[in-house]
Amino acid sequence: MRDPERTRRAILSAAFDLVYRQGFRATSVNEIVAKAGVTQGAFFHYFATKNDLGFALTEELLRDMILDRWIKPLSAYNNPVQGIARRFRKLMEATTNEEMGLGCPLNNLTQEMSSIDPVFRDKLRGVLQLWIKETERYLKKAQAGGYMRPEVDAMSAAEFIVMMEEGSWALAKVLGERSAYRSAYDGFRKYLESISTDGGSLRAHY
Amino acid sequence: MRDPERTRRAILSAAFDLVYRQGFRATSVNEIVAKAGVTQGAFFHYFATKNDLGFALTEELLRDMILDRWIKPLSAYNNPVQGIARRFRKLMEATTNEEMGLGCPLNNLTQEMSSIDPVFRDKLRGVLQLWIKETERYLKKAQAGGYMRPEVDAMSAAEFIVMMEEGSWALAKVLGERSAYRSAYDGFRKYLESISTDGGSLRAHY
Repeated sequence: MRDPERTRRAILSAAFDLVYRQGFRATSVNEIVAKAGVTQGAFFHYFATKNDLGFALTEELLRDMILDRWIKPLSAYNNPVQGIARRFRKLMEATTNEEMGLGCPLNNLTQEMSSIDPVFRDKLRGVLQLWIKETERYLKKAQAGGYMRPEVDAMSAAEFIVMMEEGSWALAKVLGERSAYRSAYDGFRKYLESISTDGGSLRAHY
Repeated sequence: MRDPERTRRAILSAAFDLVYRQGFRATSVNEIVAKAGVTQGAFFHYFATKNDLGFALTEELLRDMILDRWIKPLSAYNNPVQGIARRFRKLMEATTNEEMGLGCPLNNLTQEMSSIDPVFRDKLRGVLQLWIKETERYLKKAQAGGYMRPEVDAMSAAEFIVMMEEGSWALAKVLGERSAYRSAYDGFRKYLESISTDGGSLRAHY
């Protein structure tokens, strides 16, 4: 692999898989280079330390993964509140039992590294804040389009929505039961209905 | 300390404080006995291994803490759904900044130990299931008293409620901002209103 960008991506992608399955501290640089099929020299050319790799994992892969999973699909809906409900259901249905047992990669890394390393904490927090901010942007769009009640505070609602999204995956992981997603979805929908205007009601669409 | 029950409780209580602040694996038996003011011999008289102490911590202290914080206060309310909302607000207001930074002790231990040790996982999961089960019991009471809509599935609603309770503390910890509790509370209340009957509406009480 002589394409530098491709080598770097191969390292990040191998690291993502290993860290998702074993945790960051339990994953060694040796394992990452073996899985990526690159030399240690190549690794340290791109990342001065294992922590630097972890920061890139957070600010590039995890950030993109969150936007791809939770935010980008919303652009397909005229009513973003309906989009939030439908996208949740789709993600819930697409999650394999293995992924359910592993949980959310952002949440896992946050739980493992935030209290140990303040730089990690700030970068992980940054991804969560971006997730909230982008959700808020879509809620404001919903409000402007008359789908969400005008008295609802979009920022506060966005924090609550992201909390439910993360919380649902965390609960299913801990309980080890798919039914937890269904309970989360039912409650989530009730909440989304409560912030919708009559014209933007979700009920008609289900 | 020659009262055996008191010695055992002193060990558990010292362990709780240390584990809450540093994590289970980072806490040594030496630190626990020093903080409890007992000998290593006394420790190993009550707990054959450090893991056995961790199991007792989960099944006794964490279990009681969850029941004391989240379940027992509900008995004071005629309308348990209103009780759930008020108790959440009280806990949110009583949480210090230090506790906010440390998060929920049950959630922390679950995140740290569940994927590593299946015995720990089962015991921690048992506490979470008890929390859900007891919440369900109060929701059924609310339904029988005409406060909660009859079509709401009490078990599913209980899972969602506990997910929001755990999720709120997790979000505030990660964001490092008290405003996260307020966002969680606002959303939580909207949800609780949506499962209340008109006669059991929460609005009148705020």
